[in-house]
Amino acid sequence: MKIKPLDDRVLVEQIEEEEAKVGSIIIPDTAKEKPRMAKVIAVGTDEDLQEHVKVGDKIIYSKYSGDEIKVDDKEYLIVQRGDILAIVG
Amino acid sequence: MKIKPLDDRVLVEQIEEEEAKVGSIIIPDTAKEKPRMAKVIAVGTDEDLQEHVKVGDKIIYSKYSGDEIKVDDKEYLIVQRGDILAIVG
Amino acid sequence: MKIKPLDDRVLVEQIEEEEAKVGSIIIPDTAKEKPRMAKVIAVGTDEDLQEHVKVGDKIIYSKYSGDEIKVDDKEYLIVQRGDILAIVG
Amino acid sequence: MKIKPLDDRVLVEQIEEEEAKVGSIIIPDTAKEKPRMAKVIAVGTDEDLQEHVKVGDKIIYSKYSGDEIKVDDKEYLIVQRGDILAIVG
Amino acid sequence: MKIKPLDDRVLVEQIEEEEAKVGSIIIPDTAKEKPRMAKVIAVGTDEDLQEHVKVGDKIIYSKYSGDEIKVDDKEYLIVQRGDILAIVG
Amino acid sequence: MKIKPLDDRVLVEQIEEEEAKVGSIIIPDTAKEKPRMAKVIAVGTDEDLQEHVKVGDKIIYSKYSGDEIKVDDKEYLIVQRGDILAIVG
Amino acid sequence: MKIKPLDDRVLVEQIEEEEAKVGSIIIPDTAKEKPRMAKVIAVGTDEDLQEHVKVGDKIIYSKYSGDEIKVDDKEYLIVQRGDILAIVG
Repeated sequence: MKIKPLDDRVLVEQIEEEEAKVGSIIIPDTAKEKPRMAKVIAVGTDEDLQEHVKVGDKIIYSKYSGDEIKVDDKEYLIVQRGDILAIVG
Repeated sequence: MKIKPLDDRVLVEQIEEEEAKVGSIIIPDTAKEKPRMAKVIAVGTDEDLQEHVKVGDKIIYSKYSGDEIKVDDKEYLIVQRGDILAIVG
Repeated sequence: MKIKPLDDRVLVEQIEEEEAKVGSIIIPDTAKEKPRMAKVIAVGTDEDLQEHVKVGDKIIYSKYSGDEIKVDDKEYLIVQRGDILAIVG
Repeated sequence: MKIKPLDDRVLVEQIEEEEAKVGSIIIPDTAKEKPRMAKVIAVGTDEDLQEHVKVGDKIIYSKYSGDEIKVDDKEYLIVQRGDILAIVG
Repeated sequence: MKIKPLDDRVLVEQIEEEEAKVGSIIIPDTAKEKPRMAKVIAVGTDEDLQEHVKVGDKIIYSKYSGDEIKVDDKEYLIVQRGDILAIVG
Repeated sequence: MKIKPLDDRVLVEQIEEEEAKVGSIIIPDTAKEKPRMAKVIAVGTDEDLQEHVKVGDKIIYSKYSGDEIKVDDKEYLIVQRGDILAIVG
Repeated sequence: MKIKPLDDRVLVEQIEEEEAKVGSIIIPDTAKEKPRMAKVIAVGTDEDLQEHVKVGDKIIYSKYSGDEIKVDDKEYLIVQRGDILAIVG
């Protein structure tokens, strides 16, 4: 099953905290907040977005952003371009 | 009776939870939330939308979006483009 | 007396519930809500709107939209394009 | 004394309820609301507006809109284009 | 000392109530409200505004608009174009 | 140390009340409000702004606007173009 | 690990208060507020931004702006162009 985000959205899966720590980026907040780093699974239909964000990119996204969905019991997020803060290389 | 959405809207019917589970996408939230996956019945008059979304497509739409209508005792939703998160292929 | 909506508005009259049921579209909400289906009596001065909506069209409009007016003791609504969800054919 | 509205505004005088009833348009609301029909006295400097609204036109305007002014003890309203719902012919 | 409003603003001085009554325009509101008629002292740098509003023009401006300043113990207002309702000739 | 405002901002220093009174402009408000007159120290990178506002200009700025900063124990403000009401010559 | 801000954002690291005092800019507020001066580590993908802000620039940013992230136990901020007040040379 393939999920194609519409327009300027990306489909991402969150990177586990341990893995994220290896990569050594943590985005903590008030307390035990989930890291806000994720891997891009699919890029939306917007062409300008496709030039800037690629499948496999790791992104940092802003707090309280993203729509949660679950596919085959795995959680994903759909994040809008305006909530993508940076790409981690 | 035919319903033609105006401008950048689509007419959709929600996909039953069982059927959605077969397709294995669930979009749960706080508790017993309806899956937010639906099948496109009609695409609005906007030409750019028509290039991106087709009749028969399955879409995931954002929470609290869509206007409910009932035709021949069957419920439908009219969803704006900005609330279509992704197309499921 | 003729009423010409300005810009991107339409003048409509609500379709009676019985008649609407024959046409079999009902747009219920929390409780006894009026059906939100109406017949277009006049189309505004906006040319793009005139291409998409015609006198005699039946429209579905969004909740809490429209300005009520009364002409010769008959009630009408003036609805903006952005509140027209679909055209029923 | 001449009052020239600036930009996309019109100067109007409200049509008395009796006269408005002869014309048979009433725009009632919760209770004893003033009819919202008025006669155009002057059209603003905006050229596009001047093509659509003429001195002498009767307009219906939206609720809670318009700035009241008084000239020679007579009350007028200055109404923005966006609050003009329709022109009555 | 010369005050040049920036962009689409005008510098005005309020017209005294007595003088305003001679001119016979009063813009009362809930109670003892100051008349909202003023004389233009300087027009902002915006060229389009300069075509529509001239030094010496009497304007009517909308309620709660304008920034008060005091020069040589005399009060002035700086009013934005969007708050100028009409020009009185 | 040089501070270059970005885009359509200006760096200003407030003019002392005594000095401001000599220049005789006071912008009082509810009570003991600081005069809102200031001298331009640096103009932002926006070219259109640079045509309208020059280093050394005295400006009047709107209430509650400006970001305070302190350089070498001296206070400055960074004010956006939209909050510059007028230039005093 | 490289962090590339997306669109019109910059990645910055805050300048320590002592260092900032040497540079002698302090941006105090109600009480013990952190100085809002920071050094640019990476500039976003937006080309116009890249012309105005360079890696190594010291910026002053507005209050309550910026998203905090932590890389290798060091804190950074991602700040949008609209929150960059000035560049310090």
